Amino acid sequence: MRLALFQLDAGKPLGLPEVGDMLASARAAGADLAHMPELALPGYGAGAATLRASAEQAPDTIARLAELVARTGVALALGLPVVEDGQVRNAAVFLQPGKAPASYAKRFLYGDYERDAFSPGEAVSPLVELAGLRIGLLVCFDVEFPETVRELATAGADLVLVPTALPFGDGARFIARSLVPTRAFENGVFVSYADWCGSDAAFRYQGLSVIAAPDGRALAQAGEAEPDMLLADLDPAGFEATRAANDYLGELRARSGRR
Amino acid sequence: MRLALFQLDAGKPLGLPEVGDMLASARAAGADLAHMPELALPGYGAGAATLRASAEQAPDTIARLAELVARTGVALALGLPVVEDGQVRNAAVFLQPGKAPASYAKRFLYGDYERDAFSPGEAVSPLVELAGLRIGLLVCFDVEFPETVRELATAGADLVLVPTALPFGDGARFIARSLVPTRAFENGVFVSYADWCGSDAAFRYQGLSVIAAPDGRALAQAGEAEPDMLLADLDPAGFEATRAANDYLGELRARSGRR
Repeated sequence: MRLALFQLDAGKPLGLPEVGDMLASARAAGADLAHMPELALPGYGAGAATLRASAEQAPDTIARLAELVARTGVALALGLPVVEDGQVRNAAVFLQPGKAPASYAKRFLYGDYERDAFSPGEAVSPLVELAGLRIGLLVCFDVEFPETVRELATAGADLVLVPTALPFGDGARFIARSLVPTRAFENGVFVSYADWCGSDAAFRYQGLSVIAAPDGRALAQAGEAEPDMLLADLDPAGFEATRAANDYLGELRARSGRR
Repeated sequence: MRLALFQLDAGKPLGLPEVGDMLASARAAGADLAHMPELALPGYGAGAATLRASAEQAPDTIARLAELVARTGVALALGLPVVEDGQVRNAAVFLQPGKAPASYAKRFLYGDYERDAFSPGEAVSPLVELAGLRIGLLVCFDVEFPETVRELATAGADLVLVPTALPFGDGARFIARSLVPTRAFENGVFVSYADWCGSDAAFRYQGLSVIAAPDGRALAQAGEAEPDMLLADLDPAGFEATRAANDYLGELRARSGRR
């Protein structure tokens, strides 16, 4: 499965035509799946009123994104505000040709900005299947909690997609370079972490988007400042030796069986 | 609290006189606590028969180590085989002047070598207090599971001491450079990871012992090949800003309160 991760410049307007262009670029690169940041539409820093208005239009936005996905044949995972159970949520949405959309609402909201705009989700992401890989969804701060990736890996995920919007700083560098690869290593899964770079009216972002392998290596990592399209071929069969040497999930199962 | 971590050369014999010399070096450096690797006595690669014989002598060994601790005034954490409930265990033992020894038995044994020699522990480490810090114990493979550090941090640990014996290789480098600092960052605690370097008759070790801070920085890290004494001053009050910015334990408490 070939993944195209798009690190986006928060200073440039992004709309449906630009998403369509990126899906076309992903298709030209042979990708099966395009992955974009948190709240890709209407932009992370758009503010609570715009986020709410965008959430109310989400069914239409998702229908139009599904048309782009059907037209290009490239699946799409990205962050969007949605209304769910009457509440505005910070969601990751997954679309693939010929199937119903899947979505997940962020459980760990970060800071007052998000708590003012969103209600937290309550449910674990569904697993979707694409090109033989089982895929789970998280959003940004969620992945910093080892519990979230563990529950997806235990449920059988091979790949965790994380749209993110990481505020610039030393802690952010540590998260992108060490913590996210550790989530991949400690669960024997791929983790794709698609971030913004640059600044919008509200925030400056870290960049350093990364596609991490089950052995902790960064298969591809973006820089801090520039938008980028990262490509990686994800084949779980190539990591059987590393998973056998560090079979964390098997050890946990064996241990819970003994007790 | 000043910590002295001793990365030891597995190719050199280690006995009580050498431990005494290291405690004297730690005292000369102003350290409150000396931290040494997994199975420091009789050596990780000594083999099942020697490990069992050493475990049977553990009460005498611990009494003699306690004398060295009392004489130097420096607390000591190190790995030792012990007999507990009639079973040979791979333990971390903590000794400080004027107090009873504390110990923890490794729960996640690594590979056939350890499973042949030891029975796994069942209990979480007690927390001990030294110079105002609450300290928990793990051994080697244990720390690779995020669940183990999480339960110690949730119980109130400021510092987790991990005697280790990390087999040389790419996975080991990732563990020492990325995974162990991530454990510190994701829990807002200090993690001290004391490894062997060099080789014994059975194994080659990775070195790269590290003292990681609550912001994920390595306060000190040893090289791959040489024995070393690392020194670091551990002050939780210096990391209140980073813990407030990334209050993982608080978020988990708030979330479990909502459900």
